Amino acid sequence: MSKNIRNIAVLTSGGDAPGMNAAIRAVVRACSFYKIDCTGVYRGYQGLLDGDFENLDARSVRNVINKGGTFLKSSRCEDFRKPEGRKLAYDNLKSAGVDALIVIGGNGTFTGAQLLIDEYNFPVVGIPATIDNDINGTDYTLGYDTALNTVVEAIDKIRDTASSHNRLFLIEVMGRDAGDIALNSGVGAGAEEIMIPEESDSLNKLMKSLKISREKGKTSSIIVVAEGDKSGKNVFELADHINDDLDDYDYDIRVSVLGHIQRGGKPSCFDRVLASKLGVGAVEAILNGTYNVMIGVERKKVVQISLKDAIEPRHEFDQELRRVADITSV
Amino acid sequence: MSKNIRNIAVLTSGGDAPGMNAAIRAVVRACSFYKIDCTGVYRGYQGLLDGDFENLDARSVRNVINKGGTFLKSSRCEDFRKPEGRKLAYDNLKSAGVDALIVIGGNGTFTGAQLLIDEYNFPVVGIPATIDNDINGTDYTLGYDTALNTVVEAIDKIRDTASSHNRLFLIEVMGRDAGDIALNSGVGAGAEEIMIPEESDSLNKLMKSLKISREKGKTSSIIVVAEGDKSGKNVFELADHINDDLDDYDYDIRVSVLGHIQRGGKPSCFDRVLASKLGVGAVEAILNGTYNVMIGVERKKVVQISLKDAIEPRHEFDQELRRVADITSV
Amino acid sequence: MSKNIRNIAVLTSGGDAPGMNAAIRAVVRACSFYKIDCTGVYRGYQGLLDGDFENLDARSVRNVINKGGTFLKSSRCEDFRKPEGRKLAYDNLKSAGVDALIVIGGNGTFTGAQLLIDEYNFPVVGIPATIDNDINGTDYTLGYDTALNTVVEAIDKIRDTASSHNRLFLIEVMGRDAGDIALNSGVGAGAEEIMIPEESDSLNKLMKSLKISREKGKTSSIIVVAEGDKSGKNVFELADHINDDLDDYDYDIRVSVLGHIQRGGKPSCFDRVLASKLGVGAVEAILNGTYNVMIGVERKKVVQISLKDAIEPRHEFDQELRRVADITSV
Amino acid sequence: MSKNIRNIAVLTSGGDAPGMNAAIRAVVRACSFYKIDCTGVYRGYQGLLDGDFENLDARSVRNVINKGGTFLKSSRCEDFRKPEGRKLAYDNLKSAGVDALIVIGGNGTFTGAQLLIDEYNFPVVGIPATIDNDINGTDYTLGYDTALNTVVEAIDKIRDTASSHNRLFLIEVMGRDAGDIALNSGVGAGAEEIMIPEESDSLNKLMKSLKISREKGKTSSIIVVAEGDKSGKNVFELADHINDDLDDYDYDIRVSVLGHIQRGGKPSCFDRVLASKLGVGAVEAILNGTYNVMIGVERKKVVQISLKDAIEPRHEFDQELRRVADITSV
Repeated sequence: MSKNIRNIAVLTSGGDAPGMNAAIRAVVRACSFYKIDCTGVYRGYQGLLDGDFENLDARSVRNVINKGGTFLKSSRCEDFRKPEGRKLAYDNLKSAGVDALIVIGGNGTFTGAQLLIDEYNFPVVGIPATIDNDINGTDYTLGYDTALNTVVEAIDKIRDTASSHNRLFLIEVMGRDAGDIALNSGVGAGAEEIMIPEESDSLNKLMKSLKISREKGKTSSIIVVAEGDKSGKNVFELADHINDDLDDYDYDIRVSVLGHIQRGGKPSCFDRVLASKLGVGAVEAILNGTYNVMIGVERKKVVQISLKDAIEPRHEFDQELRRVADITSV
Repeated sequence: MSKNIRNIAVLTSGGDAPGMNAAIRAVVRACSFYKIDCTGVYRGYQGLLDGDFENLDARSVRNVINKGGTFLKSSRCEDFRKPEGRKLAYDNLKSAGVDALIVIGGNGTFTGAQLLIDEYNFPVVGIPATIDNDINGTDYTLGYDTALNTVVEAIDKIRDTASSHNRLFLIEVMGRDAGDIALNSGVGAGAEEIMIPEESDSLNKLMKSLKISREKGKTSSIIVVAEGDKSGKNVFELADHINDDLDDYDYDIRVSVLGHIQRGGKPSCFDRVLASKLGVGAVEAILNGTYNVMIGVERKKVVQISLKDAIEPRHEFDQELRRVADITSV
Repeated sequence: MSKNIRNIAVLTSGGDAPGMNAAIRAVVRACSFYKIDCTGVYRGYQGLLDGDFENLDARSVRNVINKGGTFLKSSRCEDFRKPEGRKLAYDNLKSAGVDALIVIGGNGTFTGAQLLIDEYNFPVVGIPATIDNDINGTDYTLGYDTALNTVVEAIDKIRDTASSHNRLFLIEVMGRDAGDIALNSGVGAGAEEIMIPEESDSLNKLMKSLKISREKGKTSSIIVVAEGDKSGKNVFELADHINDDLDDYDYDIRVSVLGHIQRGGKPSCFDRVLASKLGVGAVEAILNGTYNVMIGVERKKVVQISLKDAIEPRHEFDQELRRVADITSV
Repeated sequence: MSKNIRNIAVLTSGGDAPGMNAAIRAVVRACSFYKIDCTGVYRGYQGLLDGDFENLDARSVRNVINKGGTFLKSSRCEDFRKPEGRKLAYDNLKSAGVDALIVIGGNGTFTGAQLLIDEYNFPVVGIPATIDNDINGTDYTLGYDTALNTVVEAIDKIRDTASSHNRLFLIEVMGRDAGDIALNSGVGAGAEEIMIPEESDSLNKLMKSLKISREKGKTSSIIVVAEGDKSGKNVFELADHINDDLDDYDYDIRVSVLGHIQRGGKPSCFDRVLASKLGVGAVEAILNGTYNVMIGVERKKVVQISLKDAIEPRHEFDQELRRVADITSV
């Protein structure tokens, strides 16, 4: 174990995700277990610039494991993008006696951290937390599993009313660059069609599928649309397009944008366990002298990937599940 | 007990509401208990015109008490507004041997039923089911309690992310003519401000309240807006207005339209119990020769009101709760 | 308004109930609104004896409206039953400058408060909070509605497995002296039979009903049993009795004691609104010079009843619902 | 693709688990997609003996993806353990024209299937479904993720009341041979201690940990105990033991046995997606001529393992999580 680490700081940044509090808790408890100090940084990188720090001990994180959001709060920080902002952040960390920093967030958060590494060689470890699940080097990001449950519960409710009224519902879910939420929640909710940003011909496929459904006499349908869908239409335009194109059918089309409920809520057990593993893994990586990595999970094991690689755009998506979606929606 | 009633029909009409299935179940079970036939009518008044009937027995309604929506389905029916449509409906009821009709729905549903009474003297009893709670003669309508829980659960989730990011959220809830959902869910969710259709000066009040909050240093806020708010602005325009008017503040404003999730979901225990009482009460009213009434609830007792009075616009709202809202949001 | 009241204390006592936090919040906010001080007392009457007080302001109660339990904590207090204990409590209240006390709890809590009134003429107002709903002078007690939802959600889950396996489940719910939880959750969950402490012949009725069910070929059943059922058997003994008595049937009987999950959980919207009304109503009663009452609710209006009358055993139960239960379980 | 397969039967057997319906749906939809017949077998192996079969098509499985339990029902079947029982099962399958069988269940289910393979060379594929997660050859079994969420939600509720009253709760969860539920839900619920069947010194560890907690002044605690814990004591005896051993402390100990709620409930999104993959994977394995395997999942990919190996007792458990549990409960 590295003898030089006596104080680890932790911050959350970017869009909040359920499980962030559980990850902070695990970081704090692991510091406590290994008898080192833990410094909480409020409001992400902004708090680094403002020196908005607080010492956290095991009691500081009682009763947070099951809370959504992040008690350290998050924010966008324009000033951290400037060299003088990062200088200030570095100086604040040093003068607070912080030896290493754990950042909890997504792609933007890690990109910021990488600058701190590149410019000041400050030891940083990342924990992937974003409901979008769009990070390399981990099977799952924090918050993703909870968001999926929130989405399927919402669609289950909408299906009640869709079935009662023979309606077609277009449901927009989050995922600007990654269709993971749409694809998984769509399969989970038994959606008739799913539109994801990774596919370019989604509109044609949708129209074909709707025509077949109508011919079969299907009277209600759920279509799940990722907000980043590449059809060139937002979900309201899509509703108009369907109405125009299928006007010989008597469709009653409704739109539902699930929005920010997807970011909140009590974390699922999966996310709480994942957060606990990643938080402990991050502290232990630092204590073992492994810096500038992201802690991820493969199967149930904690793994490490360089932050640089974690930041790279992710290109794969779950093609097998796409195929399953088509088969089970017959 | 009236000896002439041997067959009661039941239908659901208008917007669906959680608890409709539980009410159908209670009607069917009560018919079974009193050893008379029960005829289910599919798709509301449309089914009356189409003769889309099915005999229902105690087993037909197993495992529906906890399901959202209505298994008898609902629909709008233009043809029922025409005299010849109602003639057809009446003829179908007579030829199916139906002696009385129970209609489950809201204002529009009862208005339709009243025509059947006026023109054909056909015995009808109404059960109030609408998430809006905007019906005279009953403390509660079916589905309202469930919708309130759905809304506060959604706002609880949104507050997680609002608090994490210091954001102002405008949340639109249902209630075109009645602010019951907005007022009760707003109090329940601890909203900082609530805008309801019963009040005309809501916009001024909101702007004043936001300024006070900012001066106090409040960094996140939840505003609940009924879709029928009389500010003359929809929720997106309202967001723009706040942004313009408060541009010296650094507000990050987001809008969330909760939409159709409010109509679905498993009914709460309250709604299941209410549905059971109303359904049994409707059958017993008919068997006791009391027609053309709506069955409501006052405190925990089943009461009756003439359908004509039930249809009248409701003018009261819970002024005491409005006052409580202002006090508890200080 | 009484000019003499400058400081109101609030405590929670007895078994905790969802909505207690929301009631404390409403008390604190109302004090803040009327510009008087509010003193929080920790651990119920024990805190009165220990002088475990804390000044509460509007910020102290942020983000508690949706939390189960009570952040002021609760406890049993043997010493308060002794005259010298109450002397100490009174002295502590006086020396802290407290002018009146709001107690949130059930029958035992109010009985304690009455002693303080009788012996020291100290102004007290009660807020009824108990999941059992067994208090005179109010349609609903705090926590009852939430507990009902918790119970029906649990039974919905158990019914999944009961139906899959053709099993008979005996489910014990809370309610030592009052069958409200059992009766309402039983109707809400569609239980085949319900055993409540208000009825003495429940065992015979159950055995008869089970025999009829079996003859009809019913293959799974849910029986809800209040813990205070007067059959003279606990739920495990009841299971043995059924097994012995129906041994010619091939019943697979299981027992589930729902236990303490019934006391916790996020309060329902109903309970949050009720808590807000009662909390404001309690403060306003004191400010209007009305002491030694319990604040209750009838229909949606706040009402007052003398604490003495509130303490009396409640004898009525919802006979109409009992009848509905028998009709809808055919 | 094997041209010989024209009809696949599917059954569920053993303890039911959330996600079974979703798996049946995926099997039926995949058969429909590949244009082969699907035969539903009711009540597990008992239905094989009774010839209790029904042809299932895509519509038969509408609206089941989000239902707990299994609509094909499950049962224990003594007769299938006898050679003549299996002979009858085989004969029924053949005379119904069934070419292969998919069995959804746990260890006992697969053991039965293996007999059919060994004795009649009948093609069988297994889908692992048990809340206990105790099957080789798959990262996750169906129902496990849902059960974990049910457990942590229940413990969250109990913690509300534990915190309000300074109580110690012993919570028994399922898992006779495998501590996966206890360990994961314990970490997820922030339990102070976790007792699992894989460890033999759990009682000593617990007593030591409780003494340390008390010295630190911890006033409420949650202990999660797997029903198969090897302490030699059931959870009630354990409570007595703690009371006796710690009688100098003033502990208020309560026991909660979560019981059968763990088996039911709407499946989580994770379980619905898993079920969809496994169901499609099972049909495709058969069509590709791969029999006598279990379909599992590793990371997000469908994998196969011989049924024989799947049946072997599983010895590993998540040691890393055990370590994380100790660290995060400091």
